[in-house]
Amino acid sequence: MARLAIAPVRDLMKETGAKLVAKDAVMKLVEYLEGRIEEITSKAVGLAKHAGRKKVMMSDINLAIK
Amino acid sequence: MARLAIAPVRDLMKETGAKLVAKDAVMKLVEYLEGRIEEITSKAVGLAKHAGRKKVMMSDINLAIK
Repeated sequence: MARLAIAPVRDLMKETGAKLVAKDAVMKLVEYLEGRIEEITSKAVGLAKHAGRKKVMMSDINLAIK
Repeated sequence: MARLAIAPVRDLMKETGAKLVAKDAVMKLVEYLEGRIEEITSKAVGLAKHAGRKKVMMSDINLAIK
């Protein structure tokens, strides 16, 4: 089951030009986004540790996204 | 200003091992996710058009993510 809020994703899709979107298309995108959150967060936690910190900072996220 | 709901993103980060996260780190990740939604949706709209459809389907999203 999706963890992210679905409606804001669908709204943003509509504003980006997808006037009609199948429900499972939105869910697929949400699933992808959740996977990216997990991948980026795991990297960022490792980067924070590497820098001797417990707290994940914006610089960790910036580096993890690259 | 962020369009996605912030709290579910933060919750998912915490469950992925980021016990302490700076607020601007969460916001940076949300900003990245919003950018990905726009990029993927734009591609998916083009793919739906290419297939002679107005409605964006899951197959368009699958292809756009790749």
